[in-house]
Amino acid sequence: MSSEQQPLEFDVVVIGAGPVGENAADRAHKAGLTVAIVEKHLVGGECSFYACSPSKALLRPIHATRASQRVQGSEGAHLDAQGVLDRRDAWINKLDDSGQVGWLDHVGITLLRGEGVLTGTRTLEVDGREVVARQAVILATGTTPAIPPIPGLRDAKPWTNREATTTRRIPERLAVLGGGVVACELAQVFQALGSAVTIVEQAPGLLGRNEEFAGTAVKEALERDGVDVRTDTKAVEVSRLGPTGEVTVHLEGGATVVADELLVAVGRTPATKGLGLEAVGAELTDAGYVSVTDQMEVKGLDDQSPWLYAVGDVNGLALLTHMGKYQARACGDLVGARAAHREPEPGKTTPWAGDLGSPQVVFTDPEVAAAGLTEAQARERGLNIRVVDLPMDKASGSGLQAEGYQGQARIVVDEDAGVLVGATFVGQDVADLIHPATIAIVGKIPLTTLWHAVPSYPTMSEIWLRLLEEYGL
Amino acid sequence: MSSEQQPLEFDVVVIGAGPVGENAADRAHKAGLTVAIVEKHLVGGECSFYACSPSKALLRPIHATRASQRVQGSEGAHLDAQGVLDRRDAWINKLDDSGQVGWLDHVGITLLRGEGVLTGTRTLEVDGREVVARQAVILATGTTPAIPPIPGLRDAKPWTNREATTTRRIPERLAVLGGGVVACELAQVFQALGSAVTIVEQAPGLLGRNEEFAGTAVKEALERDGVDVRTDTKAVEVSRLGPTGEVTVHLEGGATVVADELLVAVGRTPATKGLGLEAVGAELTDAGYVSVTDQMEVKGLDDQSPWLYAVGDVNGLALLTHMGKYQARACGDLVGARAAHREPEPGKTTPWAGDLGSPQVVFTDPEVAAAGLTEAQARERGLNIRVVDLPMDKASGSGLQAEGYQGQARIVVDEDAGVLVGATFVGQDVADLIHPATIAIVGKIPLTTLWHAVPSYPTMSEIWLRLLEEYGL
Repeated sequence: MSSEQQPLEFDVVVIGAGPVGENAADRAHKAGLTVAIVEKHLVGGECSFYACSPSKALLRPIHATRASQRVQGSEGAHLDAQGVLDRRDAWINKLDDSGQVGWLDHVGITLLRGEGVLTGTRTLEVDGREVVARQAVILATGTTPAIPPIPGLRDAKPWTNREATTTRRIPERLAVLGGGVVACELAQVFQALGSAVTIVEQAPGLLGRNEEFAGTAVKEALERDGVDVRTDTKAVEVSRLGPTGEVTVHLEGGATVVADELLVAVGRTPATKGLGLEAVGAELTDAGYVSVTDQMEVKGLDDQSPWLYAVGDVNGLALLTHMGKYQARACGDLVGARAAHREPEPGKTTPWAGDLGSPQVVFTDPEVAAAGLTEAQARERGLNIRVVDLPMDKASGSGLQAEGYQGQARIVVDEDAGVLVGATFVGQDVADLIHPATIAIVGKIPLTTLWHAVPSYPTMSEIWLRLLEEYGL
Repeated sequence: MSSEQQPLEFDVVVIGAGPVGENAADRAHKAGLTVAIVEKHLVGGECSFYACSPSKALLRPIHATRASQRVQGSEGAHLDAQGVLDRRDAWINKLDDSGQVGWLDHVGITLLRGEGVLTGTRTLEVDGREVVARQAVILATGTTPAIPPIPGLRDAKPWTNREATTTRRIPERLAVLGGGVVACELAQVFQALGSAVTIVEQAPGLLGRNEEFAGTAVKEALERDGVDVRTDTKAVEVSRLGPTGEVTVHLEGGATVVADELLVAVGRTPATKGLGLEAVGAELTDAGYVSVTDQMEVKGLDDQSPWLYAVGDVNGLALLTHMGKYQARACGDLVGARAAHREPEPGKTTPWAGDLGSPQVVFTDPEVAAAGLTEAQARERGLNIRVVDLPMDKASGSGLQAEGYQGQARIVVDEDAGVLVGATFVGQDVADLIHPATIAIVGKIPLTTLWHAVPSYPTMSEIWLRLLEEYGL
């Protein structure tokens, strides 16, 4: 039994080996510490196997095909559904994480397969085996799909992002509950691959966390694709005919949506169950996320010497891989500095940029790329803002990119500070237009300086010039 | 005759109605001045009809087709040469500038068709008609293709960018003299549209003003396309068999290149001839460009009250449309402020960012996108730099963009100042990755701040994170 074994000892133990956990482990290890990472499923995590990576792998052939179809002189492009699925399989390596495990071996991080449970300050059990973390434990367990309490829903065995991103079967009819990023991206994928997709979303629009015009553009595009988008629509009951028969979603008002599969994409639930948080006094937010300081220290611990951290989705600050990784880098550096009794490098161990609003790209067609605050968020913060809107084709680079290019750009300017606080681009191939905004926002570059950052002609980035001209520079 | 007519009077006269002249005129007009613009050929200029726009219009179908071909699941894309030429025709509006003329009319700028010649301080003649510029004359005449003094070359009636970007005939064999942007972009276009292309370039590599690895990548790509790239090769004589027969380029050492057309793309000559510069004492640089101050004022004038300005290619500072337009905006604002005896807005009337190195995108496949200084330029300036190189596929966004994505990224860091001074990206779809660099360079953002600008996963922009990690952040 475990009690007879010596406990395993490491400087740092990270629970959860998704990209966030990997980053935290890597930074702590680079600081000279011995590190173990605990994973009960796949090293690489949700993002690599069930979320961003397969979703983008599925979407990219759709984008590339349409981009070709939209340019005169480029002919004949069409989608091959089997090829798309094969591509996805290559990206998720058929759910084999040996590549990621090889990386851990290569850098010298110990992988502990199993479920990690906190048992006290700096101690945990992994599948019954006692493990001691001399310096710190970092939680990076992420989230799981939320299943709302709709009668019959669980029994209908709905798909979550996991089943949808890994399926090799294209259902004839797919119903999607939800209207956020996962719902929109996967609705577009399945419609393009041959499903007849219906979206059922409670909110009045799609992509509710983005500027309203972004959700509107994606809704219109999905409808052009043939998706039946029902916003302002509430599902009240779900039933399935037998274990694999058709699913009926009963809507408020009496209508129904009948489909072969139902994808639930209505948000996420923090993966805190069974982590032993109560054993150490960890505080949770109202939504059940692990409550952290601005240095990712878990709040409310019985032993308040800093030893327990939470990074990524599980702390609920920003449910985005890149923001979780950002927190993880800062946290890994902080743990390294504290272990060495070094003063942390100024600014490096606090992931302060999260407060300015997280950049995010939705890889639908059109893409939605946003950074900083939306207009509404900026107003909520009481900022004195000005909003500048322009169609993307004000930059000739957009028209050169695709015939009849459709898209929209917005910047949100803090008039008192004279700096950018938000930006959103909607359109084909806008994903990489957002990093300039992220830099301008984080760098708090005065607009009068930004004016001298000349975009190259004729790139799509010239929309930056047009926006500043429209602002009045 | 003109002498009997009253002179035409305007506050400002701009000579040259390319994008640069248009911008200068627009800004001066927006400052409340009456403005005339003089153009002897097409309003819209070289860029709109014979350079950037048609070149990109021709290249984009090639890029879109290849992008599709490089993604598993996107099948069947191929190039249709007639479609490509039709697309180009649409972009150059079959050399009809009525759209641009309509814009001038719409905003209220007077178009004077004809050749503008300076006759004295604030006076000029346009096709013999006397014109007075009460406040300022702005020169924006650009450049013309340089024809090197190779025996027989002129008589062989070579193509310049004008003939190459507007042709409807794809020569069976095309020889290209030169290895810069125009040579590389058009060599790729004609090879893709069916020509057998040979590049003859004196220098040891292509794209000599960029980082060496960029030229090497483009050379290898052109060779994969089937272009015969001969660097380190000097043309010593050219002959053509009859007026439309085949052209022979005689190379140093005795070899020859035989082609149906010969494109000369070895640089540009300032369009100063017949401008009357000598009548006002204007100073020229050694290379024959109009010499200007950092506020675009022409140097050496007999009348030194500021009244004559030169913007864009004709001043030789940066032969790039977007940099010329940048100078033009600053110049137009300066002229407006001076006319109103207003103090110019701080920083707006000096296009200071040019000194930091001009951003530029070469739209070959692979694209080359660069900003700031190359390693060599930074060393020439005596900066204490560190160079960080990474293959583009270190960002998973690149691998998701195309199977087997090939590309290279470099940043040049000023170690004393702790800021970025240069960046170069080579690869498919990198054109919009460079604006973040331009902003970081112009904003002089400390690398330790840039570290907090988190690129979205999984975009190609994540190469920014990888570069900073590799740097040691």
